[in-house]
Formats: sequence, structure tokens, C-alpha cells
Amino acid sequence: MCELLGMSANVPTDIVFSFSGLIQRGGGSGPHRDGWGIAFYEGRGLRLFQEPSASAHSEIARMVQRYPIKSEVVIGHIRQANVGQVSLANTHPFVRELWGRNWCFAHNGQLKDFYPEPGFYQPIGDTDSEAAFCDLLNRLRQKFPEPAAPQALLADLLTACDHYQTKGVFNCLLSNGDWLFTFCSTKLAQITRRAPFGCAQLKDMDLTVDFKAQTTPDDIVTVISTEPLTCNEKWQLNQPGDWYLWQRGKCIGSGNVF
Amino acid sequence: MCELLGMSANVPTDIVFSFSGLIQRGGGSGPHRDGWGIAFYEGRGLRLFQEPSASAHSEIARMVQRYPIKSEVVIGHIRQANVGQVSLANTHPFVRELWGRNWCFAHNGQLKDFYPEPGFYQPIGDTDSEAAFCDLLNRLRQKFPEPAAPQALLADLLTACDHYQTKGVFNCLLSNGDWLFTFCSTKLAQITRRAPFGCAQLKDMDLTVDFKAQTTPDDIVTVISTEPLTCNEKWQLNQPGDWYLWQRGKCIGSGNVF
Repeated sequence: MCELLGMSANVPTDIVFSFSGLIQRGGGSGPHRDGWGIAFYEGRGLRLFQEPSASAHSEIARMVQRYPIKSEVVIGHIRQANVGQVSLANTHPFVRELWGRNWCFAHNGQLKDFYPEPGFYQPIGDTDSEAAFCDLLNRLRQKFPEPAAPQALLADLLTACDHYQTKGVFNCLLSNGDWLFTFCSTKLAQITRRAPFGCAQLKDMDLTVDFKAQTTPDDIVTVISTEPLTCNEKWQLNQPGDWYLWQRGKCIGSGNVF
Repeated sequence: MCELLGMSANVPTDIVFSFSGLIQRGGGSGPHRDGWGIAFYEGRGLRLFQEPSASAHSEIARMVQRYPIKSEVVIGHIRQANVGQVSLANTHPFVRELWGRNWCFAHNGQLKDFYPEPGFYQPIGDTDSEAAFCDLLNRLRQKFPEPAAPQALLADLLTACDHYQTKGVFNCLLSNGDWLFTFCSTKLAQITRRAPFGCAQLKDMDLTVDFKAQTTPDDIVTVISTEPLTCNEKWQLNQPGDWYLWQRGKCIGSGNVF
């Protein structure tokens, strides 16, 4: 199993607190020692930090923690290899340009007997995850030659996700930097923090943050994770088939494919 | 003007020494304070570090210096903005997937009245450089639906580069992780280091390295830069129109388009 981390916010927000909890699970408190990656949107640009080794002992991960990068959309992942060897090319999140934007994707789960049609986007590594991402973009690109709003893409996104989950486990995060789409096939949880902000205590290490000291009353920050990252807040657990569309911290669409 | 840095080697080699000289020019000894980026191939994977601010004062640049990343192909760039605002999306090098590999590109120069045909690959930022990169990939993709060896691509690569340089200045580095292509429209220099290795002294800061202590007799390492980075070695200066194709440190093709 891998672990996912996503964030959608209405102001550039750093994810140091949540990332600190996540990377503990990468070889620290968890078994995910085969790599980690985190992507931060900055305007239309994307910063991607990745390593095909345990995050809990990573120099780059420590740098990401020390050097708070503020972003409105973040996608992170820690990996326990199932399909595909341990290598940088197999490390999530994956990125492709579509319609002049960076699209970013991370997946938790395993797909079996998954042989998508070859298309324009081709996997660089040999994971089922990147193959699904390329297939998803190939479907969108084929259906929509021109850029489309996320609401217009939803039916095709959901058809694709529903198909992938018939092949195994498919929890995923997908973004183009503007919106963040989440799909739960087995396990995903989320929390939206807004005023009045309080304190939060990480589950995986002895770290507490007082969000009130770091925010303004207008801030809205949603964090999505495979499992709740804090022990004193109320996370909403997703059900199989649940999907959400987030923009600037707010839910702008949700449903269940079943 | 921007500055380019490239490396092709037959063993994973760190570029800390050359990068140390380059980043001094990014707001230290040079005027290139509008961003820097460096891409390291690792197998089929690619690590990309970028910042839209001066490299000489960058936390991430210092991390890249402290933490020697070994690679067989590296493309680096420091930027003084001419076309396109200062932003992450406008920071070189640029990356796209073509035929299941990461293609990476950096450009020094400016193109005027350059309006390439729209194609599959679309710029994310608004630089002439990224527009040229997308146009180059669109031309290759259209001509070669299937992966082709660099020798087969050369004629089209050179036709494209020759076209771009009629629009202004076009010095560039391009790689798919296997080979490295360089094109000189005005200024580019290179050095191939092999046994017997000696000492090198950076031009831009007081730093000397003894390559003998860091290499084996079989190592071959070629470094390409806008201007020679060291003051005690013999760099080969490229002439306008010169192109080279490098693989594992060795020149496997060269010529001049004029």
C-alpha cells in the first residue's frame, strides 16, 4: 500500500505539517520505504521533489520540510513498491502537459490485467499507476481536442476511474493546478480547515501546530490523505466510489459512482 | 543573456564543481538573477530543480551543491529574463514526454517574430524558448510516429535549429536521457575530460578540484557551457552553426549547418 497526500487551498499555504506526518510513514512509522514524491503548483509551474528511497531518511525530504514552499495545490505520495522496480521513473507523482498545463497524478493501489490501448501519452516507467494516468489523459485528449472545464470532463473521468477500479484498487489524486480531483476506491480521508482555526496534533510524530497563528480568517484549506494525519480533528472518511472536485479549498462537486 | 550547462558522461558523475561556477553567475558574479534550473537524468527518470530567483542566494541551489547527485546526463540553465515574466513556468529547463522518455531542453538566446504552428505539445509558460521546444517536438512527432535513433532525427533537428536561428539567437541543449544534442548559434564551449585527469580551477569563484581523486581511468566526462567555466583548461569554442551529438561522454556526431 502507498499513501496519498493532497491539498487544495484558497491562499498559498505550506504543507510542512502534513508532509512531516506523511514522511514518517515512509520508513519511519510505516512500511513505505520505496520512494516518495511531492509536487507543488506555483502558478502554471510545478515543483516536483522525488526520491526512490525512504522519505524518513531523505536529505531532499528534510529540505522540503525546512524550506516551506507555499502552494494552492499539492499532490504527495509515499510508495511501497508492488508493480515496477524501485526507481525514479517509477516514483509518483507523475506529470504530463495537457492543453498547455501541468497535469499531476498520484495513485494508491494495484491494478491487475490492465493493458490500456496505446496512445499519445506513454509511460516512462513500468508502473500500473503511470499506465493508468497516461490512459486517462489519452481518453480526455481524444474526447476533448480543446481545453475543457473540469465539470465537462467529469463524466469521462468517472467512467475511467470506475473502469480502473474493476482492475484492482484505485485511489487517486489528479490536478491541473487549478482544481484537484480525488477518487476513492477503498480508502481516502479529508478535512477542510477554516476559521475558527484550532490546534492539530500529528498521529505519526510528536508535533502540534496552531493553525490560528498561521492563517487569516478567510483561509480555506482542504487536506486529503489515505488515512487521517491528525488525532484530534474530525476527518471525513470517503466511501468506495466517492469522488470529489476541489477548487481553492472548497468542494465544487462530489458524488459516488455506484 | 542566459547561460547553459550540459554534461554527458559514461559513468554517473556529479556536476557540483561546474554547477558551483554556474550559480555564481546567477546573481553572484553575473547578471542572471531571474531564475535557474538543473535537470539530472537517473535512468529514465529525471530530477528537476528550479527556482524563479537568483541562484547565488537560493536554498535549493545550496542543497543541490551540498548533496552531490550523480547522473550521466545533466542540463542546467540560469536565466536573465527577456521574453516572458519571471515565474516558475518560464524557468528552464523544460521537460516533455516523447515516446515514453523524458525529453529535456534549455535555450540561450531570444527569438523574434516566432509564431510556430500549434501542435500537440503546447507551452505552459510564455517564453519563446518553450515555444521552440514544443515546436521541435511537434515536428519530430509528426515526422516519426515511432521512436527513432538520434542519427535518424538529425536532419529534422538541424532543419528546425537552423530555422530558429533565423529568428534570433538559438544556442540550445536537448536530451532524451540517452544522448545529448547541442546547437550553437552564437556561443557555446565544451571540454571532454578523460585520463590522465588533472586539476581544474573555476573562473567564477575560488574553487579547485582534483579530478584524478574523483575518477577512474575509464571515465569520460564532457561538459558544455555558454562560456568556459575553468581558467586553466583548454575548452573548445563552438562556431556559429556547430552542432554536436554526445553519448556517454563521447562525441558520436558533429557538423555545421552552414
